[in-house]
Order: sequence, then structure tokens, then C-alpha cells
Amino acid sequence: RIKASGLKLRFCTNETQATREQFVRKLQGFGFDISVDEVTAPAPAACRVLRERGLRPHLLVHDDLIPEFAGIDTTNPNCVVLGDAADNFTYANLNEAFRVLIGLENPVLISLGRGRYYKETDGLKLDVGAYMKALEYACDVQAEVVGKPAKRFFESALAELGVQPQEAVMVGDDIENDVGGAQRCGMRAVQVRTGKYR
Amino acid sequence: RIKASGLKLRFCTNETQATREQFVRKLQGFGFDISVDEVTAPAPAACRVLRERGLRPHLLVHDDLIPEFAGIDTTNPNCVVLGDAADNFTYANLNEAFRVLIGLENPVLISLGRGRYYKETDGLKLDVGAYMKALEYACDVQAEVVGKPAKRFFESALAELGVQPQEAVMVGDDIENDVGGAQRCGMRAVQVRTGKYR
Repeated sequence: RIKASGLKLRFCTNETQATREQFVRKLQGFGFDISVDEVTAPAPAACRVLRERGLRPHLLVHDDLIPEFAGIDTTNPNCVVLGDAADNFTYANLNEAFRVLIGLENPVLISLGRGRYYKETDGLKLDVGAYMKALEYACDVQAEVVGKPAKRFFESALAELGVQPQEAVMVGDDIENDVGGAQRCGMRAVQVRTGKYR
Repeated sequence: RIKASGLKLRFCTNETQATREQFVRKLQGFGFDISVDEVTAPAPAACRVLRERGLRPHLLVHDDLIPEFAGIDTTNPNCVVLGDAADNFTYANLNEAFRVLIGLENPVLISLGRGRYYKETDGLKLDVGAYMKALEYACDVQAEVVGKPAKRFFESALAELGVQPQEAVMVGDDIENDVGGAQRCGMRAVQVRTGKYR
């Protein structure tokens, strides 16, 4: 209905357990008319940062997200990229990411979001933000967050739409990541009471 | 030599991967004249707190530490006790501890130390403090730290010796946990340049 009205539309997701392709297929399955180039997501945002700054990441992310980093040089890493790795958040993998980070002369930690937790059918799960805090503390660094609620993330979405913040409305179920992030960017925001709202 | 001089002696350790019995056996193996009742350690300190406040812990600790909590009621937990669980820091176990904590009306997180990392023969490992930060962030709580450098921990050791802070000297290799903690307690402290000093 938004599309039919002629309004420009962009899906801003913090999904980091799947590629945009998988994310879009899932939404198409729910009946949404959506394509990959309408999606703004943390992994491609991180890839832009990596390319701009010549960073070679050690990836601690979900297996299904790996294809988003195709073409990124991961040899001899000089930073750590952290996503919601789920089952890949093993003791061994966390220690490995920690060792890479603490071994760097100038430790750079890029986190694909700062969520505290989320709900799945089998219960609440720790989100990437909790693991980000663990590595921040252990290495005494501050992570750079890409994805919501980072200002830069919303600015990318606006740039892709070719509109100004005051011309856009953000709609979301997360008061901090969706509504707060968009408002700090100069956008209006609408809190919906569905999804994870409680 | 300290014992022969008539000075009172107490071993203050943040060891939470083993019982005091195992810890003492290890030191005896190195030739130290030491017995269990000369050791102040985080797990018994935590047990005192649990008993005083009627807390029933969900334990996320090393398997070898479990015997220290014998006699503590762990049914229907109303707090989480976190130690250096090492291989027990699995994704599933962290989520479980998180769910217990976030499900409490008044979430209490007790951490057996706040170390960032430590070194083992196969490399650096994340210490309990990193996982403490993850749970603190996810549940928006502040952990209560028992063990060094908590003031109360040193006070327990002093009480067990029956001496005042100004009568005691702390000797240790950790500038923060050993020296800083003792000094904040009114003790003198000596930094040795062995062990983990670098």
C-alpha cells in the first residue's frame, strides 16, 4: 500500500543472522513485495567501513552471514567484526576474537548492532551487544557500532532514498534502536506496538 | 620463612576454577607449606553472602568449583553466581544464566571476580569479568563482585587473621586486584614483578 501511494520505502534491519537475500526471501514468504536493493542492513554497512579504511576483519558472525563479506580481505586481520553469531559464540571463538583484538597495536572492534537480547520461539537469547561489551571490557576498547541505532546507518538509508531526514518517517517496534536512533538523526519516528513491543 | 618468623599468613586467591582443596594440593606440590584454612577465596565468600541474604543461586561456574557450593540451596534460583566457567561458557549456558537473571523481579548477579583476561599455556583467555559485563549489559544490572579487589574480601581475610588493615601487608603480582584492592582497604601492599607482571 505504501508503494502504491508513490512513497519511497526502505527496510532498515539489524538482521545479522542471514544475508539480505535470505532476509528478503523470508519476507516474500510472508507476502511482502520486497527486493534486496530496498534493504539497508549492518553487514553491507560494515563492508563499506572496512573498504574505506583498509581494514581486514577477523569475523565472528553467523555462518549464514559470511556471504555478505565476499570480496573482503580477511587475511592477517587488523580488526574484529562482531555480529550475532548465535551458535558460533563458543568459548573457543570468543577467546580467538579476543586474542586477535588484544594483539592489535590499534584495536578496532566493529559491532553489527548493540542489541541486548531478542526473543526466539525457544526463549530469550543474548544479542550481539552483550558480547560486544565483553570484548570492550577485556580489551579496554570502545566498539564502533554499525546498524541501528547508529546515526550513520540511518543516514545511509536516507542517502539511498535521496531524501532529507525531515522528509522521512521511521516505523519500528524498538524504542531505542528504531525510534531513538531515527529521532537523533532528525527523522520522525513511529513506535508500533507489535513485534517485540511489550 | 614467614611462618617461622611468627608472622600471621593468609593466601588470598581469586581462583575459581578449583576448590580450595585442589588449590592447596597444587601449591603443596610446588613445596608450599599451606593448608585449606589459610586460604581466602571467592567461592566461600559468595556462600557467606548467599546464606546471609537467603539467596538461591543459579551457578555458572567451573565444574571443579561446584563442591564449594555443597549445602547451598540451588532450587528455584533468585540470583546468578558467575565464576570463571571456562569451557562451561557455552552459548547455551550463557543464555540460560541470562534468562534466569532477566526473569527475576529483583535481579542479583554475584561475580567471583572482575578480571579481564588471564594467560594459560595455550594463550590468553577471557576472564569472568568479560562475561560479567555481558550479563550486566543484557539485564541492565550491576554485578556484586566478591573476591579481589572487593573491599569486603580483604576485610574477611583480615578478620580471619584477627588483625587491623594497618598491621597487614598484601603481596601480589596484580596492580589492580592485589595492590589497589588492599590499599583501598587501608593496607600496605607490595607489587612483585613475577607471575603475570609485565
